[in-house]
Amino acid sequence: MRIDFLTLFPSMFEGILNESILKKAQEKDAVQFRVINFREFSDNKHKTVDDYPYGGGAGMVLKPQPIFSAVESIKKETKTAPKVILVCPQGERYTQKKAEELSKEEHLLFICGHYEGYDERIREHLVTEEISIGDFVLTGGELASMVIADSVVRLLPGVLGNEDSPILDSYSSGLLEHPHYTRPADFNGYKVPDVLVSGDHKKIAEWRETESLRRTYFRRPDLLETYPLTEKQKSLIKQWKNQN
Amino acid sequence: MRIDFLTLFPSMFEGILNESILKKAQEKDAVQFRVINFREFSDNKHKTVDDYPYGGGAGMVLKPQPIFSAVESIKKETKTAPKVILVCPQGERYTQKKAEELSKEEHLLFICGHYEGYDERIREHLVTEEISIGDFVLTGGELASMVIADSVVRLLPGVLGNEDSPILDSYSSGLLEHPHYTRPADFNGYKVPDVLVSGDHKKIAEWRETESLRRTYFRRPDLLETYPLTEKQKSLIKQWKNQN
Repeated sequence: MRIDFLTLFPSMFEGILNESILKKAQEKDAVQFRVINFREFSDNKHKTVDDYPYGGGAGMVLKPQPIFSAVESIKKETKTAPKVILVCPQGERYTQKKAEELSKEEHLLFICGHYEGYDERIREHLVTEEISIGDFVLTGGELASMVIADSVVRLLPGVLGNEDSPILDSYSSGLLEHPHYTRPADFNGYKVPDVLVSGDHKKIAEWRETESLRRTYFRRPDLLETYPLTEKQKSLIKQWKNQN
Repeated sequence: MRIDFLTLFPSMFEGILNESILKKAQEKDAVQFRVINFREFSDNKHKTVDDYPYGGGAGMVLKPQPIFSAVESIKKETKTAPKVILVCPQGERYTQKKAEELSKEEHLLFICGHYEGYDERIREHLVTEEISIGDFVLTGGELASMVIADSVVRLLPGVLGNEDSPILDSYSSGLLEHPHYTRPADFNGYKVPDVLVSGDHKKIAEWRETESLRRTYFRRPDLLETYPLTEKQKSLIKQWKNQN
């Protein structure tokens, strides 16, 4: 997979792309990143990338030309039909399902604006996906694009080795993860539940299933709406309901 | 405000904290960042930070000791009662309201794990806030913590100057932003709406209000559930409903 980031702040990406899983993924040739300053594509002698909004108002708006030219130049080089992604509050809400979808693409291209608005023609005629990572405001699209890239790249074949077992994968089972404990059994008086040190594997498995369900029921009951509960799980939930 | 990040990958933060608004915010003394490798606090001679899970299973679990010791050491230095934040899928969903809440704190401390699980005692006895930025899986807590920090810091007094007008603030009005356009009026045959070049400010304001409502109605109808609609807005929505 190839992933391009169009940005005015290329150095924001350095630390992220060259560490941990994203670094390993590049070393394993599972992904190639390119960070491109779209200011270089401005056809204006001052290399401007934004201008005042038509109709007046505060703030600047990113011009269509530099971004269209940058995308065109990339497509010419790669001969691909990339998903052109704009991360913005108006977009479709990002979920693990979307991450899985994007992980099947050969080329993703993120357009990252930074406190300016975008000329609407970029949205209408260039962008293929508008995605929102949540109902909060960021200073730019860079971090949000890296979030999406990170969640996609870890799904590419061969990227997560066994050593990086996805223990935090709360969404793979449909329930939240059960609690984890490691040594010492007593830390400052805080103890590990007895069952986990009992050596009884059947009881341990039961405890984990129950705690996973409990956590989901109390913290994210919405996840249970579409979850195929067993009779035993239904009866546990009934019990918890009655306790409250 | 002071913001600490506890991480095993400190260099992930370099590009982000030293660019754009987060950089400016530090220069203006609105915020102080500290990135701390909690491996340095391990009391083990091999500086290990994780261990096998009690009860068996795949993956490693972050030990309580290094993280407890790191937080204790920071608190001793700052003499504050920080919000100790764990970013994880089990947490409360992050929203702009939470960003506003956190922006009133004097000290935030993020614990960033990386593909391991956390010993539950960290959650129970150290962490004060568990936050999820969305229903997707990341390789670690670093990017998610930076997302939260970014959204909080831009709200601190004096951080956003007029030059960085928050034009993308889709949540401040309760509706999504109307489209923006800048020069040229005709880009490759894609034209700016006539009304925006008409000079008629009343019509422009009306157009923007309508488009803001239209975008919200078609893309995020959930935002309208609690929005105090005027009679005019209700009639516009009725019109759009009938068109479909």
